[in-house]
Amino acid sequence: MSALAATEPSGDSLLLSEIREQPAALDRLLNHSDEYAVAAAAARARGLELVRMVGHGSSDNAASYGVYAFGLLPGWTAFRDSISLSVYYGAEIDLRGSCIVALSQSGETPDVLTYVERARARGALTIAITNDPGSSLGKEAEVVLPLAAGPEHSIAATKTYTTQVAALALLAAHAAGRGNEVTEAIRAVAAQLDAALPALERQLAELAVAFAFVGRMFVIGRGPEYATAREISLKLLETCRVGAEPLTATDLMHGPLAAVDGLFPVWTIGSDDENLPAVREAAERARAAGATVVASGPAAGAIAGAAFSVPVPTPAMTALSPLLSVVPGQLFAWALAQAKGLDPDRPNGLSKVTRAL
Amino acid sequence: MSALAATEPSGDSLLLSEIREQPAALDRLLNHSDEYAVAAAAARARGLELVRMVGHGSSDNAASYGVYAFGLLPGWTAFRDSISLSVYYGAEIDLRGSCIVALSQSGETPDVLTYVERARARGALTIAITNDPGSSLGKEAEVVLPLAAGPEHSIAATKTYTTQVAALALLAAHAAGRGNEVTEAIRAVAAQLDAALPALERQLAELAVAFAFVGRMFVIGRGPEYATAREISLKLLETCRVGAEPLTATDLMHGPLAAVDGLFPVWTIGSDDENLPAVREAAERARAAGATVVASGPAAGAIAGAAFSVPVPTPAMTALSPLLSVVPGQLFAWALAQAKGLDPDRPNGLSKVTRAL
Repeated sequence: MSALAATEPSGDSLLLSEIREQPAALDRLLNHSDEYAVAAAAARARGLELVRMVGHGSSDNAASYGVYAFGLLPGWTAFRDSISLSVYYGAEIDLRGSCIVALSQSGETPDVLTYVERARARGALTIAITNDPGSSLGKEAEVVLPLAAGPEHSIAATKTYTTQVAALALLAAHAAGRGNEVTEAIRAVAAQLDAALPALERQLAELAVAFAFVGRMFVIGRGPEYATAREISLKLLETCRVGAEPLTATDLMHGPLAAVDGLFPVWTIGSDDENLPAVREAAERARAAGATVVASGPAAGAIAGAAFSVPVPTPAMTALSPLLSVVPGQLFAWALAQAKGLDPDRPNGLSKVTRAL
Repeated sequence: MSALAATEPSGDSLLLSEIREQPAALDRLLNHSDEYAVAAAAARARGLELVRMVGHGSSDNAASYGVYAFGLLPGWTAFRDSISLSVYYGAEIDLRGSCIVALSQSGETPDVLTYVERARARGALTIAITNDPGSSLGKEAEVVLPLAAGPEHSIAATKTYTTQVAALALLAAHAAGRGNEVTEAIRAVAAQLDAALPALERQLAELAVAFAFVGRMFVIGRGPEYATAREISLKLLETCRVGAEPLTATDLMHGPLAAVDGLFPVWTIGSDDENLPAVREAAERARAAGATVVASGPAAGAIAGAAFSVPVPTPAMTALSPLLSVVPGQLFAWALAQAKGLDPDRPNGLSKVTRAL
């Protein structure tokens, strides 16, 4: 595929076929809703309202969503815990009041495994969410919850990210006594996504051509959509070699705005929620600084002056928007890789399970 | 100052004069060590071991350090809380067991102020660390602690960042009953920094010239030095318009490594601690991908194959390394701005107090 040629949507790419599989993957996850209910009940029975999430890469991005899922649904405090604090520095923190949610597609990420091992010994309730319940992580955790995304062959994660986001929403919803409602809402999102995918594929394949020579980008989201901004940035870094940086709308104003110019496109994600005014302001400031702005998300239409607009359907429950908002970014990464003459299935120097120190 | 000319260290720049003022600013902060002891005692008296830190920009970067200061010294859990969760979404989270540490140089950051107001009403102990104890934030918080950095005139923060890092170390140390020890250790760091500054200024002014045409960089740190990576990236974004992205050593391996090539320099920060092997591995992988590697930090010498090495003195207490490690990055940003023909005192489109939504 040559640079600058609009890419024909094709099923040949592992990345694209897994992007397409996301609605089905979400449906498979929902078949396990009862198991998520049991895990939430275990946390409630122990009176735990402090959730420590751990994971790397896309799993860590999904955890950014978990902060909001647990905060907004049961009103629990959830945060992305430092793995190195306990695993490498041996910090002695009392974990008896904590619920661990460890996220790993493969269930074989070494330091996540060590973290869970130590947390369990320190009295935390340990829950693993993994695509392979028979993995080392699945065996180590007290409770193991399946992602059920199906085997992931693409190096750049897509369906395991969206199922992780949905899994966190599901666990948080059951903790809030709203499990059935959220299960049905996710099912509806999966159907919306399935219907929207073909047109999104065509649109993004065309749009990506204009970005063939881009070397850096900002991706702006806030609240639950900050996870989306992080995940889209990661896809662009790994598949397109674009120096993409995720920022909240507020982060942008606290410094990075100074870097924006006509060579620095800004991808914005707008949902119909309380953060929309901040995202709109960020887009406006970026545009005033000369940036080409892409507006995406269910509220893409509310972001004025965007050069490109990629709306997605509005979910029945606003907090589930990230399941839809991330998809244009995934498709953009797939199409942009090809526009740049790169193979989206062969990111430079990466392998499937990262066994980093 | 023309591009590509090595910059002569000069006192004319506000940014440079505040970088130089850091040892004195740290000394001024230490005069208030007793006030930090009182605040720590208040948290202990209430049995609080959960610290929620809030701030934007450099203040938020300092909070990344706080995670380790509180985790390693008193063994408390500290995390960067989501401001939008409570301020914009109105999440109802029980805060009676929480100690808030709000970081704002000016004490006038609107949503930090609102966060503290609500947290206080919800029963949290609220501590403000600010350069202006008479500010709105100073008045709103139950306990106000001075940064004592002196008036900050530069738009890009330096001395307020380092004093915030020291302030968090001080508060954590007093919580651990090690206040005097850490006060003296910070005093020694200030003296080490004072002695090292002139040579660092000369070295960075020369080194920056080689990077005049760089448009993007990664900055790698882990553990307490992740804060340093974030802060150096922010300086590069705001003063040099470089698309700089902070990553932990592990983050790099989980995707972004694919983006690295000869046009993508990687700045690494090595301290003599348990994370050094991971940072060394990240540097090696980046170099293998063709990147020009800069090694900095007290353990710069342990990072093999770096094109440039910028060591700083080794502090008596390893956990205080970030006070020294950040300085070469600050000086690099100052010098690189000039090498690029930019004015480091006039970042594009930024003003001193950000009143973003």
